[in-house]
Amino acid sequence: MIIKTNKIKNILKSVINQEMFTPLHAPIFEGNEIKYVTDCIESNFVSSVGEYVTRLEEMLQEYTGVKYAVVTVNGTAALHVSLLLCDLKREDEVLIPALTFIATANAVSYIGATPHFVDVNENTLGVDSEKLDTYLENISIMQDGYCINKQSGKRIKAIVPMHTFGHPVDMDALNKVVEKYNIDVIEDAAESLGSFYKDEHTGNHSKLSAISFNGNKIITTGGGGAILTNDEALAKKAKHITTTAKIPHKWEFNHDMIGYNYRMPALNAALGVAQLEQMDKFVEKKRALALHYMEAFKDIEGVKIFKEPEYTKSNYWLNALILDKGYENMRDEILQVTNDAGIMTRPIWTLMSKLKMFKESPKMDLSISESLEKRVINIPSGAWL
Amino acid sequence: MIIKTNKIKNILKSVINQEMFTPLHAPIFEGNEIKYVTDCIESNFVSSVGEYVTRLEEMLQEYTGVKYAVVTVNGTAALHVSLLLCDLKREDEVLIPALTFIATANAVSYIGATPHFVDVNENTLGVDSEKLDTYLENISIMQDGYCINKQSGKRIKAIVPMHTFGHPVDMDALNKVVEKYNIDVIEDAAESLGSFYKDEHTGNHSKLSAISFNGNKIITTGGGGAILTNDEALAKKAKHITTTAKIPHKWEFNHDMIGYNYRMPALNAALGVAQLEQMDKFVEKKRALALHYMEAFKDIEGVKIFKEPEYTKSNYWLNALILDKGYENMRDEILQVTNDAGIMTRPIWTLMSKLKMFKESPKMDLSISESLEKRVINIPSGAWL
Repeated sequence: MIIKTNKIKNILKSVINQEMFTPLHAPIFEGNEIKYVTDCIESNFVSSVGEYVTRLEEMLQEYTGVKYAVVTVNGTAALHVSLLLCDLKREDEVLIPALTFIATANAVSYIGATPHFVDVNENTLGVDSEKLDTYLENISIMQDGYCINKQSGKRIKAIVPMHTFGHPVDMDALNKVVEKYNIDVIEDAAESLGSFYKDEHTGNHSKLSAISFNGNKIITTGGGGAILTNDEALAKKAKHITTTAKIPHKWEFNHDMIGYNYRMPALNAALGVAQLEQMDKFVEKKRALALHYMEAFKDIEGVKIFKEPEYTKSNYWLNALILDKGYENMRDEILQVTNDAGIMTRPIWTLMSKLKMFKESPKMDLSISESLEKRVINIPSGAWL
Repeated sequence: MIIKTNKIKNILKSVINQEMFTPLHAPIFEGNEIKYVTDCIESNFVSSVGEYVTRLEEMLQEYTGVKYAVVTVNGTAALHVSLLLCDLKREDEVLIPALTFIATANAVSYIGATPHFVDVNENTLGVDSEKLDTYLENISIMQDGYCINKQSGKRIKAIVPMHTFGHPVDMDALNKVVEKYNIDVIEDAAESLGSFYKDEHTGNHSKLSAISFNGNKIITTGGGGAILTNDEALAKKAKHITTTAKIPHKWEFNHDMIGYNYRMPALNAALGVAQLEQMDKFVEKKRALALHYMEAFKDIEGVKIFKEPEYTKSNYWLNALILDKGYENMRDEILQVTNDAGIMTRPIWTLMSKLKMFKESPKMDLSISESLEKRVINIPSGAWL
């Protein structure tokens, strides 16, 4: 086995072609970052009222083709507000993939609602619509127009498909299924800025979607996120909720609901504007790197590089080395050998259903997620490689 | 009346001595702001893992004398986490002044707990301990070591005194009262960085405290805040909860509780380090401005400038013009005339107990808060004046 592991390490080394430690991801600041941030400080408007906030929102609208963008302090906040905008209640359940980053499950928990874990498929690493349909048919019943979990008696109000590593979920198939059950869709597009599904940018195929600009994402604002929606009323409400629900007035302080301090500061937006200007270059470089990895690994037994689903154009945010079934026991050895060699790699997230705070949450058969958890290894994917 | 109002406007004009529109507050960037933010971008670490984050925390510890500082995305997040660290439950009540900014009440609501409104006194604009003591004696009963509201049956778990406009609450008096009832104290020090109570910085007189670095505060990080505590275990837990409760590991993703994405990005911390370096200058200037206002208004009938309580040294974050009783009907006219003249003024916040989402919340007699609501006007207080 050690021979194979070393071979994999050497291929990674040759593609990466760097002497020093190689992180999984890191931002590139080669554009107007310092210029805009300096300008922002000189303007004196560094907080959530600032020209760069509006500019970043307009650029996001232009880039994604989604009509309204509302920028937030981070992607978790964007998810949380999106769920609130679906009128999610404490007593509700929200379907989320077991294979996702913790933010998806946390956002549901902030409202006091229950995450209900669903399985993914091997083609997209995202929600398996067909399996979901069969499952809902078995476990739910429609009551007063809502989908009720027969076992818990709770309403299944929304689903949050996550575009894993930037690869879009098959949204048409998913929408077709959930329409039958009157379940709202929020795309967790945290990782998929720059990813397109059937020629439309991700975030265009649901009621609301959430983007992240964390330091490890394709572009960064230090910390930040955005809510996207094509619905004007929801966009207005998103802005209201994220600015402490204050009713605009020259001097009076009135707030008409529980609100949040979730708006992105202009300082961060200035960085984001400079980053978004370079988006095409980043996507191009990341797609080229993915091709390079695929070529390098194409004849290696037992492993393959994950390829974008055929109806999509992915940003390849994080490349994934997938072990074939039967090769699961190589995972930890590869992680150890590569990290020891200064090449950062990591497994996919621990399944949400296994974390102690979600162990009692409802879930379907998760056999594909469980299998992938043992077989996925993320490899260095920075656009500078 | 219009003669008096014009006189007040003219005095403000003469103290302010500016031709252009004068906001209530605005940051000053005269130090190393651009240098540090540029350095932060060039270091490539702009997100929550970054040298400037640690540096800002260390500087805050040094400046406030509180042992541990954990920086957050904003002051609301700092309050929210502080409440979580007091093991606050949905079924609990939290005492907060009716006269406060919405963040105090919102943070309580995020946990699902109930704000319970208490009155303030005229000397500090903060919680009236004596009135609180009498009130608790009447409405509560001790059960299993906890203070129970006899009417609601709920536990009164914590109190969040807010240091209004930077003027410290009489913490010794408050602590003496709440100790009897086993109620945790969290200082809402959002406005009081640079304010001292009996020679110790605010935040030193409670279990935890929360600071804000919003754009309108004495120093800013764009958006940001900090949790302060002298308790090492609480500080560790604060860091854990604010970083998604991830268990540190070279590559594995494991989280052991519902966590938050609440850490301050390094980009914002870099701005904060430069700002905190200039703290002494800002406090000095703001205290001089307050003296200037006091002198200018000392012989004007019916109004006075609020003066720091005697056992404190206040940062005078926002200066307040207080109308004497009987002069309440001048408030709106002063607001109108000054704002029309390009001098930004505003009333104090609408009492929390009047907002529609908190109308059903328990409250004591709020006569002082109600009186102050009609008589307080904030006037321009930037350190550049």
